[in-house]
Amino acid sequence: MKYVYSFNEGNKDMKDILGGKGANLAEMTSIGLPVPRGFTVTTEACLKYYDDEETLNDEIVTQVYEKLSELEEITGKRFGDTSNPLLVSVRSGAPLSMPGMMDTILNLGMNDEVCNTLIEQTGNARFAYDSYRRLIQMYADVVMNFPKEDFEGLFDRIKEEKHVKNDTDLTDADLKEVINRFKAQYIKHAKDGFPQDPIIQLIEAIKAVFRSWNNDRAITYRRLNDISSSLGTAVNVQEMVYGNKGNDSGTGVAFTRNPATGEKKLFGEYLINAQGEDVVAGIRTPQKIETLQDVLPECYDEFQRICLILENHYKDMQDMEFTIEDGKLFMLQTRSGKRTAQAAIKIAVDLVEEGLISKHEALSRVDAKSLDQLLHPMFDSESLKNAKKIAEGLAASPGAATGKIYFSAADVEKAYNDGEKELILVRKETSPEDIEGMNVAGGILTIHGGMTSHAAVVARGMGKCCVSGCSELLIDEVNKTITAPDRTVYKEGDYISLDGSTGYVYGEKVETKDAEISGYFEKFMNWADEVRTLGVRVNADTPRDAETARKFGAEGIGLCRTEHMFFDEKRIFSFRKMIVATTVEDREKALEEILPYQRDDFYNLMKVMEGHHVTIRLLDPPLHEFLPKTNAEINELANALKLGFTDLKQRIESLKEFNPMMGHRGCRLSVTYPEITVMQTKAIIEASIMLEKENIYTEPEIMIPLIVDLNELKYVKNIIKETADKIIEDNESQITYKIGTMIETPRACLLADDLASEAEFFSFGTNDLTQLTYGFSRDDASKFLTSYYDKNIFENDPFASIDEDGVGSLVKVGVKIGKDVRPDISLGICGEHGGDPKTIEFCHNNGLSYVSCSPYRIPIARLAAAQAHLRQKAAEKQGSKK
Amino acid sequence: MKYVYSFNEGNKDMKDILGGKGANLAEMTSIGLPVPRGFTVTTEACLKYYDDEETLNDEIVTQVYEKLSELEEITGKRFGDTSNPLLVSVRSGAPLSMPGMMDTILNLGMNDEVCNTLIEQTGNARFAYDSYRRLIQMYADVVMNFPKEDFEGLFDRIKEEKHVKNDTDLTDADLKEVINRFKAQYIKHAKDGFPQDPIIQLIEAIKAVFRSWNNDRAITYRRLNDISSSLGTAVNVQEMVYGNKGNDSGTGVAFTRNPATGEKKLFGEYLINAQGEDVVAGIRTPQKIETLQDVLPECYDEFQRICLILENHYKDMQDMEFTIEDGKLFMLQTRSGKRTAQAAIKIAVDLVEEGLISKHEALSRVDAKSLDQLLHPMFDSESLKNAKKIAEGLAASPGAATGKIYFSAADVEKAYNDGEKELILVRKETSPEDIEGMNVAGGILTIHGGMTSHAAVVARGMGKCCVSGCSELLIDEVNKTITAPDRTVYKEGDYISLDGSTGYVYGEKVETKDAEISGYFEKFMNWADEVRTLGVRVNADTPRDAETARKFGAEGIGLCRTEHMFFDEKRIFSFRKMIVATTVEDREKALEEILPYQRDDFYNLMKVMEGHHVTIRLLDPPLHEFLPKTNAEINELANALKLGFTDLKQRIESLKEFNPMMGHRGCRLSVTYPEITVMQTKAIIEASIMLEKENIYTEPEIMIPLIVDLNELKYVKNIIKETADKIIEDNESQITYKIGTMIETPRACLLADDLASEAEFFSFGTNDLTQLTYGFSRDDASKFLTSYYDKNIFENDPFASIDEDGVGSLVKVGVKIGKDVRPDISLGICGEHGGDPKTIEFCHNNGLSYVSCSPYRIPIARLAAAQAHLRQKAAEKQGSKK
Repeated sequence: MKYVYSFNEGNKDMKDILGGKGANLAEMTSIGLPVPRGFTVTTEACLKYYDDEETLNDEIVTQVYEKLSELEEITGKRFGDTSNPLLVSVRSGAPLSMPGMMDTILNLGMNDEVCNTLIEQTGNARFAYDSYRRLIQMYADVVMNFPKEDFEGLFDRIKEEKHVKNDTDLTDADLKEVINRFKAQYIKHAKDGFPQDPIIQLIEAIKAVFRSWNNDRAITYRRLNDISSSLGTAVNVQEMVYGNKGNDSGTGVAFTRNPATGEKKLFGEYLINAQGEDVVAGIRTPQKIETLQDVLPECYDEFQRICLILENHYKDMQDMEFTIEDGKLFMLQTRSGKRTAQAAIKIAVDLVEEGLISKHEALSRVDAKSLDQLLHPMFDSESLKNAKKIAEGLAASPGAATGKIYFSAADVEKAYNDGEKELILVRKETSPEDIEGMNVAGGILTIHGGMTSHAAVVARGMGKCCVSGCSELLIDEVNKTITAPDRTVYKEGDYISLDGSTGYVYGEKVETKDAEISGYFEKFMNWADEVRTLGVRVNADTPRDAETARKFGAEGIGLCRTEHMFFDEKRIFSFRKMIVATTVEDREKALEEILPYQRDDFYNLMKVMEGHHVTIRLLDPPLHEFLPKTNAEINELANALKLGFTDLKQRIESLKEFNPMMGHRGCRLSVTYPEITVMQTKAIIEASIMLEKENIYTEPEIMIPLIVDLNELKYVKNIIKETADKIIEDNESQITYKIGTMIETPRACLLADDLASEAEFFSFGTNDLTQLTYGFSRDDASKFLTSYYDKNIFENDPFASIDEDGVGSLVKVGVKIGKDVRPDISLGICGEHGGDPKTIEFCHNNGLSYVSCSPYRIPIARLAAAQAHLRQKAAEKQGSKK
Repeated sequence: MKYVYSFNEGNKDMKDILGGKGANLAEMTSIGLPVPRGFTVTTEACLKYYDDEETLNDEIVTQVYEKLSELEEITGKRFGDTSNPLLVSVRSGAPLSMPGMMDTILNLGMNDEVCNTLIEQTGNARFAYDSYRRLIQMYADVVMNFPKEDFEGLFDRIKEEKHVKNDTDLTDADLKEVINRFKAQYIKHAKDGFPQDPIIQLIEAIKAVFRSWNNDRAITYRRLNDISSSLGTAVNVQEMVYGNKGNDSGTGVAFTRNPATGEKKLFGEYLINAQGEDVVAGIRTPQKIETLQDVLPECYDEFQRICLILENHYKDMQDMEFTIEDGKLFMLQTRSGKRTAQAAIKIAVDLVEEGLISKHEALSRVDAKSLDQLLHPMFDSESLKNAKKIAEGLAASPGAATGKIYFSAADVEKAYNDGEKELILVRKETSPEDIEGMNVAGGILTIHGGMTSHAAVVARGMGKCCVSGCSELLIDEVNKTITAPDRTVYKEGDYISLDGSTGYVYGEKVETKDAEISGYFEKFMNWADEVRTLGVRVNADTPRDAETARKFGAEGIGLCRTEHMFFDEKRIFSFRKMIVATTVEDREKALEEILPYQRDDFYNLMKVMEGHHVTIRLLDPPLHEFLPKTNAEINELANALKLGFTDLKQRIESLKEFNPMMGHRGCRLSVTYPEITVMQTKAIIEASIMLEKENIYTEPEIMIPLIVDLNELKYVKNIIKETADKIIEDNESQITYKIGTMIETPRACLLADDLASEAEFFSFGTNDLTQLTYGFSRDDASKFLTSYYDKNIFENDPFASIDEDGVGSLVKVGVKIGKDVRPDISLGICGEHGGDPKTIEFCHNNGLSYVSCSPYRIPIARLAAAQAHLRQKAAEKQGSKK
């Protein structure tokens, strides 16, 4: 097994084993750029290290020694030599970029003797001492895991004692003293001296980098970015070049184009007489890259030349690290630069127009998820810099919001009507009755509830910022306060700010700014539409949502949840009468009152959609969600129904359920109260007929929720059919409609062949399906899932991306046996997963017809669908080659 | 397609198409017994009738006419003839016996003219009129569906007017008047006269019998007896013989042996000068069969001879109908007689000893489910006769109970301590805290909750009568009353009675008697054990349950639920401290207090089991179930913990869940609070070591609940292993233990191959698996499942018998892929299904190692396992023949 590669043995396509950094160092070497020589210990060595219970086996160590000898030969220097010593850096590099997540050590190979040799050799004692103190400091931190502050604090103290501000102002003697005091500090922790053996330094450094693959921040980063922990990291061992040798030395980082805007212009910073992370660590204030032109003009020209070579070679904007040693430029890293969504699109489109890449390539260059940024407000970065983060919840709906807090929908509405425009609704959890308050608030914060809680789902639908499940905050709804972990109390009217993309809550006002949608956006999205084959529909319940979605490119409504329509003040009362009715007659009377409203709803919704698909799901949630909660409300209803208060309260009590998610809801309501289904069908069909008279084409798709059994489907379908056909006949109408079912229980997946015999379409409801496949209540799971992430049991939230092994295998069964029975069946997905790129790829690959997602996710879905198609084609091509 | 068979064309093995009655009439005909001739319209005709939307197609009608002609030829009579008229009966007969569920009409072919002919022919006007009035009465009821009472009431009124008590006391003239008044009543309902055309009578009667297949009582009966609605019923058309021709005529029913006790002695009743259902309808008091010896000695001898022939022929106790016309005996039906469990066992054992059947055959003769009767008290049938049924709930746990009602566990306990011995606990629903109250009560009645609610599960475990989900009763827990649908109010201390085998609630005291277990029982069960290959274990949490189960033949504990152990007064307080602890240290301290109790629990349990398997499941339910509910309790805990009342209340509030069944429970507790798992492992292993010192062998099987993922299993397994191995090492012990997992989520089934790599055994938890596969909360499903039964959507309760299509297919996947990875894996089932014969057969056929069920179901499981094995062997034999 080959565990170690010289830079001249690799290339840019070997990221899996060499890591991104190693592969690109090899590539730059091969195209003749000035790269200090070195070698890469592979990711496979890292995995072996973990397999061997965190030990480095002899084979790996031997190969490291071999490559080290080669390096000595090439450079003519020797590791630990007292005449011409070789010093190396050790840097991590994973297959996927994880900037700053893992560790780096510079100047390995330095010890007391080598330091003296270097002084002799260079005549630059300051440089030698500076390099040595940096090694001790990094080694203590990265290898030994001693408290970073102990060394940093010591360094700061010495600077104070010497009355200097910058490290460059310390004298040789000062730095020598630093080294001595660092060594003493090291002994205090280690009960042993700083290792003088360069080989020990090197091997321990390599192990430390492997260990850093599983440090907390790396784990979190991987989870947030869907990176598998099974990849491992590589380690790059590279001859040191020194930016800290004096005023014609330095180090810097730069992008070939502006990563925030995409502007085609070098963008970066550098520091003279500095090393490693000094630039980003903010030790001194770095200079803008343009100024290098004046300071070291030859270096600047050389750097610009290299940038051009790299962009043309990689055909992408590059993020680079460089070091200048005695006026000579060395490249230490290049990689595709991280960029904002706005920049990503501009760069991709520009690269196409510059003839560097194809449209298809351009599509693959933009992270679909990042498009969210384009559609939501963001914090002003200056204002955010000093903001105090008081808690962290779930990043439930992206965007930023700042405002005064109110603790009920009514209070928010009142403040809004009083002229307040910056408002945050804070609730233990929201319920459908809070809709109006959510609508006028700029952001929503809930204490309970997960990524797919009511608040999260509705907020995403509205494109509104939401942080959910922020259980670190204690809420007192009676006294209208929230208390942060640090005991600060925020009361009604106080300002807080929410970042719905990170889940952070700030305890003050942070300025926000609207995102800008460039003209590039439309051009780019049209390319995506040319490519994709998967349909993209929207989950929309109101004409407003539907309009937004059409603007974003939705091709139809994949899910209209009719339940939200019942919360309107005018109807909720009739609806409640319906629920507590004890006779079919009373129930029908109450439903008659609701019918005109429902008909209007569907009329307006289908009108906005102008003949595109409209899938309407019959009433789904447990009825008790709609019931009055306060005694006053109960009393009002009791009076209207001429019922005793106690009687009614008892009836309401009896409607409560232990596990409402698995209770009396979905099509079960159609079985127990067929009248509801009759009314909803009437409303849909009558609305359709109204539009027919206006020459607007409709073919409503009536969708039955929560089906588990063929008989159940037949029963409900029959009610719909009888009702619909009679109205159509009575009106001599020509309209058509379809009847289909949600597939959202494991049983429905397993018996999808049965169901396909009656259903004209399936829509996979992967929210419920995930809940049932795992036995995870989405509203409760946040309580324990944090532990699952912390303990590395789960890497992803199964409610955010489809669980392909479990839930996905049920979907596959459903698709397969459903198509066996009805080959032309329309297959959609309408869970929250419908807007997740990974899930969208799964849907594409498994033959679904469309995905349906919330309006603000439509662009994401369009791009993800295009990318899925391109990847599939690429894989097929690869397959046919073999 | 042949839709109609003459009796001489069929035999006893054609029950599927001829129904039981038809097949046996054919069989009796073929062995030369005196059976009136006739023909059978097949079950296939019935299914066709339903396929054709309840119309009888021409092909069937034509075949009926053909067979009618044959019958006319054989009998020499003609249907509707005015010289020698043929009269026929039309009787239902399904493939599986459904006594009394469907309809019968006698004397078809009678009309005004035929009546006169019969008077002329027989000189017996009374007989002719009686037959006619019976036809009108039955036709009005069965075919026309007119209110039965209208005709019965009229008949009673005429008897009153004539001052006679029995119908036989009515004169010819009286009966003629009855006919006229019946006809008038008929016209009143039908707006048309009673049909005089015999053919119309016949065809309408056949259709009516087909319709009766789907009457309410038939549907209910099928559901209760697991009979598929797709079987359909056959219709038997048979020449009438008349038991109502005078004093040497009569009709009766009899069993070849006593169906209550199994005693080998003719058992039955008859009536002289009567027809059809008179005997069972209680119109006059019937005579005991023995007395026929004095009344019509030749007939009696003939009947005895036929009984012997039938028993030897069918090799089983027979239930027969006969009619005597003018001193001549005719057999109208024979079938295997329904019998009590006690009789079933005695008869089966006797038949083996008489050499009529084999032991294997005997085992198949006893309905496994019926064994329940042998182990529980029953109502005294005399006392039950006049008891007033006030409501009907779910038959949650069999047996009978009578007692004074109390509305809390504490009140029941108090009454018990005050010396009351007949007690019924009435609760909205029970919770684990009610255990002691349930223990001293004779029966439990709950208003909410299903067949697998807490009350039901615990009651079955205790072998205690329970009616659950009796939502017809309104409960007022504050004022301690229940109100029946008829508005009668029962208050604390009032007597009610419960039948846990039917779900009936009686509003008064009904005497009960203990069941008797005969010596036959043991002999019979030993035969079952010789045959079965499937293991039978018990779900037992206490040494007492374990002892009961051992007595009933359990081979080990398949499920010890540790949660019930925490409700003891001494521990619940420590347990609560553990739950609300905010630091690991506080939690560990509280757990330390519980450890000695848990160790004792396991010590005693394993001691009772004497080296048999003991599978202990780690803590499973959501923690909030254990929390204090009243303010007083919260206060007490707050004081003990030196916490503010509000603080604690808030913490308790924050532990509540929306859907606790899918919330923070099972192994999720082990992930969030590994300390609990450490404590439970300690208790198990230390108990094992204590027993080792007493030379009692143990190998505890530690079972992890609710696993969904391999990483999760590894994490929890690791905690157990580290804890256990350290204790074993420290004690220099030799004990071994196993670690396995419940398979109770769909995901666990789908990924069972992964899980089998770490789990040494699987136990399928089909309660949770059913909940999740359907999305049915077992505690809430009763609210809507009733509608599903009423509307014929479901035939069975999926919580009672495993749903083979959905849940079963997941179990099959789990078994298959689990065995692929670990061929010798032990596979059990420990849901409530483990005691259900149909499920047990499923488990046997799919290669499970054992079933585990509540103690009182052990004998059922043993027998069902034997029967499953026998059926499998028979099917294999059949298969190899082909």
